[in-house]
Amino acid sequence: MKTCVFALVMVFLLATAAYGASARISEDTEACIECHSSVHPGIVADWKKSRMAKITPAVALKNKELETRISVKKVSDELAGIVVGCAECHTMNPERHRDTFDHEGYQVHVVVTPKDCATCHPVEVSQYSKNLMSHAHGNLNKNPVYHNLMETINGIQSFEDIKTTYNKPDAETNADSCNYCHGTKVEVKGVMARDTDFGEMEFPVLTGWPNQGVGRINPDRSMGSCTSCHTRHHFSIEMARKPYTCSECHKGPDVPAYKVYQVSKHGNIFSSLGKEWEFDTVPWIVGKNFTSPTCAACHVSLLVSEEGEVVAKRTHQMNDRLSWRIFGLIYAHAHPKSPDTTIIKNKDGLPLPTELTGEPVVEYLIDENEQDKRRKTMERVCLSCHSHGWVNGHFTRFENTIKTSNEMTLTATKILLSAWEKGAAKGLAQNDSIFNEAIEKKWVEQWLFFANSTRYASAMAGADYGVFANGRWHMSKNIQEMVDWLEFKLKVIPKNKGGRK
Amino acid sequence: MKTCVFALVMVFLLATAAYGASARISEDTEACIECHSSVHPGIVADWKKSRMAKITPAVALKNKELETRISVKKVSDELAGIVVGCAECHTMNPERHRDTFDHEGYQVHVVVTPKDCATCHPVEVSQYSKNLMSHAHGNLNKNPVYHNLMETINGIQSFEDIKTTYNKPDAETNADSCNYCHGTKVEVKGVMARDTDFGEMEFPVLTGWPNQGVGRINPDRSMGSCTSCHTRHHFSIEMARKPYTCSECHKGPDVPAYKVYQVSKHGNIFSSLGKEWEFDTVPWIVGKNFTSPTCAACHVSLLVSEEGEVVAKRTHQMNDRLSWRIFGLIYAHAHPKSPDTTIIKNKDGLPLPTELTGEPVVEYLIDENEQDKRRKTMERVCLSCHSHGWVNGHFTRFENTIKTSNEMTLTATKILLSAWEKGAAKGLAQNDSIFNEAIEKKWVEQWLFFANSTRYASAMAGADYGVFANGRWHMSKNIQEMVDWLEFKLKVIPKNKGGRK
Amino acid sequence: MKTCVFALVMVFLLATAAYGASARISEDTEACIECHSSVHPGIVADWKKSRMAKITPAVALKNKELETRISVKKVSDELAGIVVGCAECHTMNPERHRDTFDHEGYQVHVVVTPKDCATCHPVEVSQYSKNLMSHAHGNLNKNPVYHNLMETINGIQSFEDIKTTYNKPDAETNADSCNYCHGTKVEVKGVMARDTDFGEMEFPVLTGWPNQGVGRINPDRSMGSCTSCHTRHHFSIEMARKPYTCSECHKGPDVPAYKVYQVSKHGNIFSSLGKEWEFDTVPWIVGKNFTSPTCAACHVSLLVSEEGEVVAKRTHQMNDRLSWRIFGLIYAHAHPKSPDTTIIKNKDGLPLPTELTGEPVVEYLIDENEQDKRRKTMERVCLSCHSHGWVNGHFTRFENTIKTSNEMTLTATKILLSAWEKGAAKGLAQNDSIFNEAIEKKWVEQWLFFANSTRYASAMAGADYGVFANGRWHMSKNIQEMVDWLEFKLKVIPKNKGGRK
Repeated sequence: MKTCVFALVMVFLLATAAYGASARISEDTEACIECHSSVHPGIVADWKKSRMAKITPAVALKNKELETRISVKKVSDELAGIVVGCAECHTMNPERHRDTFDHEGYQVHVVVTPKDCATCHPVEVSQYSKNLMSHAHGNLNKNPVYHNLMETINGIQSFEDIKTTYNKPDAETNADSCNYCHGTKVEVKGVMARDTDFGEMEFPVLTGWPNQGVGRINPDRSMGSCTSCHTRHHFSIEMARKPYTCSECHKGPDVPAYKVYQVSKHGNIFSSLGKEWEFDTVPWIVGKNFTSPTCAACHVSLLVSEEGEVVAKRTHQMNDRLSWRIFGLIYAHAHPKSPDTTIIKNKDGLPLPTELTGEPVVEYLIDENEQDKRRKTMERVCLSCHSHGWVNGHFTRFENTIKTSNEMTLTATKILLSAWEKGAAKGLAQNDSIFNEAIEKKWVEQWLFFANSTRYASAMAGADYGVFANGRWHMSKNIQEMVDWLEFKLKVIPKNKGGRK
Repeated sequence: MKTCVFALVMVFLLATAAYGASARISEDTEACIECHSSVHPGIVADWKKSRMAKITPAVALKNKELETRISVKKVSDELAGIVVGCAECHTMNPERHRDTFDHEGYQVHVVVTPKDCATCHPVEVSQYSKNLMSHAHGNLNKNPVYHNLMETINGIQSFEDIKTTYNKPDAETNADSCNYCHGTKVEVKGVMARDTDFGEMEFPVLTGWPNQGVGRINPDRSMGSCTSCHTRHHFSIEMARKPYTCSECHKGPDVPAYKVYQVSKHGNIFSSLGKEWEFDTVPWIVGKNFTSPTCAACHVSLLVSEEGEVVAKRTHQMNDRLSWRIFGLIYAHAHPKSPDTTIIKNKDGLPLPTELTGEPVVEYLIDENEQDKRRKTMERVCLSCHSHGWVNGHFTRFENTIKTSNEMTLTATKILLSAWEKGAAKGLAQNDSIFNEAIEKKWVEQWLFFANSTRYASAMAGADYGVFANGRWHMSKNIQEMVDWLEFKLKVIPKNKGGRK
Repeated sequence: MKTCVFALVMVFLLATAAYGASARISEDTEACIECHSSVHPGIVADWKKSRMAKITPAVALKNKELETRISVKKVSDELAGIVVGCAECHTMNPERHRDTFDHEGYQVHVVVTPKDCATCHPVEVSQYSKNLMSHAHGNLNKNPVYHNLMETINGIQSFEDIKTTYNKPDAETNADSCNYCHGTKVEVKGVMARDTDFGEMEFPVLTGWPNQGVGRINPDRSMGSCTSCHTRHHFSIEMARKPYTCSECHKGPDVPAYKVYQVSKHGNIFSSLGKEWEFDTVPWIVGKNFTSPTCAACHVSLLVSEEGEVVAKRTHQMNDRLSWRIFGLIYAHAHPKSPDTTIIKNKDGLPLPTELTGEPVVEYLIDENEQDKRRKTMERVCLSCHSHGWVNGHFTRFENTIKTSNEMTLTATKILLSAWEKGAAKGLAQNDSIFNEAIEKKWVEQWLFFANSTRYASAMAGADYGVFANGRWHMSKNIQEMVDWLEFKLKVIPKNKGGRK
């Protein structure tokens, strides 16, 4: 029995040593918790479970290179010895934050941003700035073509005299749909006084709030939201590594990565056996900590073998492992060089990475050498568990699917071009939206839903999704329906909207 | 070692004390188990794992108010000292049950009902009677409009001479589809003798059986089925609190609450980290027992903070936390006052809570004061983990979405009204079903699928579902397709079904 | 303390005894691991967790009949005393394998096949050969009707002059879609030299690789792939018993078994409470090891009651518990006698189990006696937890749904036949594909998606999927849309593709 007690004491001491005997909550954070543990008990309880609440930066810095979770080399003395609590994040860089307000003697801001997180995680924030996601707000909202797509989805339509009219969507609607994932623009639009349990207080009122979209434009002008994936206030690496996190934005028919994963062998292994895996170790050991990749394993995480060899470096850029952008807008193509895709112009002057007829706008896209390099980076992950023959077979098949799905998009585009040319619908030549009529919406589904889904199913080997669920069956059917429509329109009402000219 | 043994013994004794040292199975239940453990081993094994099998009502009554799981104040001496087993439920109130039959000397009934459960849980049964769900059978089957919708879905169509005819669906089909969730009417239609391992026996034959729909009409004339959520014979509170239970009926495109939850941040936290949570504690402590709400947390459960303050009272009425009925039939509107919605009549005399053009039928709906009260009740749950600014922003956005999605329903309705008026389809004026033609079915999808889905996605912050999966994209596309159809119909075949009059 | 140590030692000894103190890895396998643990660390780590890596066949043979996991009666002395590792499978039967190649002094083959697995599991392999799945490649690819369906889904379409043309799909596309699940034909098409960490080596190059489809045609001419369900290299029975495994191929709208399961009461219980169940015991004890069936429980596993009575025998034939084939092609019908369905011919000479108008082609299908026998086998599983009244009610309802869903398929077929007859589309009489035009694709969805989904929802009691998600609503709507289309086509463009004759 004595020995049992001894063992328990040892475990405690070791744990204390590992976590830093001096782990201390700052006075400022203590002050926050004093009130907020009763005002918002859930937040405080959640944070207490976090690693942030237990480990000081000083202790974190002692980890060996492969084991470290922070990328800064040195932390200020002020921060080094205290755990990262409310005050540390919400009073960081007050001068940069337009949402800073006086609160019980503190300069507090509402929206913690990548610039705040960069205090300890500068490499991740820097990498993320090269990730398309960090530019997701502008890439959608500032690209006239995509912005018009958004308007034709979110805008209220009215009906009179057998005709419809589109009205521009309001900001709340955009925030509730596309910008929920792409990120809103969060700005201070005023202050509001409110009675609280502690007397009247003033708080900033924000536009586009709440939001945790990946490309959020923050009040300190930074872009992105770390909490998209590292959900506050637990900031659990286990959660970021689980596919549910990615599914928040990547489950719909436009980017069905999660749905494909679920029916893939990898997803099956995760669902069936993943409950035994270790999701919070750094580095993440292939085969030992987990036996099938999640999204993070292939796209983000630092992976090593049991022997300690690095299989893949950690990346928050993510596309440095991706040779293709299979999310075709409107065709799949080599990855763009810049995360800011609003700079792209094709021959027609449209801000699209390909011509309407599919040819890539090469000057804005990575070249074949870079594609090879990225493919090889990804293949190293595959080779942890698969032979070269398997991996080669997979990529050959996948690239064939990029080609054939692009061809099926081209066929749909030719039907639409024909409809425009023959006056059955109004398009570019008429300076009309290319997304507002029924036939145009069918065309959008060809690439945005069906061709994309087919490629995701191929890339991640979840074929069940790529045939009848949302893939090849629908590409094939959609073309026949588009042709049927065109034939009806042309033969039946030649003098209505157009007819042959 | 001695101390180890001592500790184990203590644990055992404490457990025994907690669960009632005198926990005793009644002789009647013993008699049931004697045969049924071999006839239906799964049922008996399942029940043995249940709290019902371990705790007597007398012990349950000793819990403090916030910890109690039964709401009766006193239990009869007969029941107090025995655990709740087969006989306790299946021989309760035999005279009320038309499905009571003689079985080995007992008066047994097949269908255990809310009236039976009310012996120990009267408050929950009473609350549930004010829940729309308890009236789900009648609200569908006795409302002529909705009933006709059901008939046009389930009825067999035949085809001759380029015309289709609808036949009325049979009862089994209705039980296999709509009434599976809404509840069947369970009646005794006779008795049947059957050879068993114990000789020939007679059993009642029931209509609409099996069924565990939320509004089931029971042989004792009560309405509802507690086992819809409290699955027999384990009756696990853990299960009732998990979203999978709600998903049995709330996953389809008409009420996609579960699909929205899955892609919400809340759903992600549950999926990623929920395996560590405590789902069987009463009361349920926010932040400690769980860190993200499930359906039950927001809509049903008794929630307290770690400091013991009540965040939300337990409710089986559920709508006392809901200011809107976002499941629009055909528009979203303030919640109805009565759970029996068959009493509602709009200006056209239709049993609908709004006019066809969207104006609410206010005399049957709660007023703004009541709406405010209910919203505040819900907001208290949100505020456990979110700031006022966050919560206000959320509800502002949500109510905007109610408005805009109703507008998109109105536009679709105007197209349909125009089709009826111009004779392109037959509707109310022709005394024809408003659900049987293709254009009418597209109209139904506008509100039943797309507008509803958009609102659920907004209410629960799962935007990925509300755009491309089943939301705004489809509202927008559907309107264009309806107009296309109308234009074709009017211009092409003016003398067929109508034409301008 | 001493006693604690003693207990630990005992546990270790007992474990060692249970697993065979002499569990030994063969020298050949040791040689494989030496290099491959660094080349493919994931595979080796995965295998080490497997039962195969811990139990020798000799030990496995000592289990009592109900507990045994291998079905061979005697294993060669050579294999009996060593665990089943890399070399045991990948060098088995080298002469049969056309993919055998010289590798570091061994005759290694890439593709391990059912014939290899039959060394220890001959009964399962034999049963599986009677399962439709083992013939899935030929049943799709060698049936001219289904093969044409595949071609019209996967073939690239081109567009010119308001007309589309189908091109034949390439083999990679078929492998990436239909044959992913049905199985590819894996053949050696050559050898390729490659530089490795161990110098240049030659490896076979395979067609149709990678693939783990259920009906894969292997280089040793065997059919099937055990790893479809028993995922390498862990071969976990837990995984095979979980529904995620079946969902890899049975989630799409054609065979939505998994989606139906999820919203069924059974699926809810599994999702909510399954984390506590024992998935790796043999036999599998109803109520004790699990309280709700997964796919495997009803269709495959050996089930016993706690008292040791056999509820269901293990079967890898699976259809010996199925009286109907509800996956209607194009109608649901009694199960085919032979797993090779290419032998079937209906009156029109089409290789379909029913006429186009639904009458079963009885000579190829099991008779009512056999149907009764199979239904009773399945019912025994149900009766573990449900009363006879419940089970009878369920099957009555289910068989009614088979009938009504077939009727709704017939109505759609009559519309198509009318379209063919009147020249609105080209079909059998014109020797044209019956799957290539838009109206034909709508007809396909009637049976392949909507009628099938309705039946699966009924069979497995997951009604939410069978109404609005993918069932009766869509059957009803589709018929109206088909008629609308036909009416348009006939009245509007009588001289285009046809018109009344």
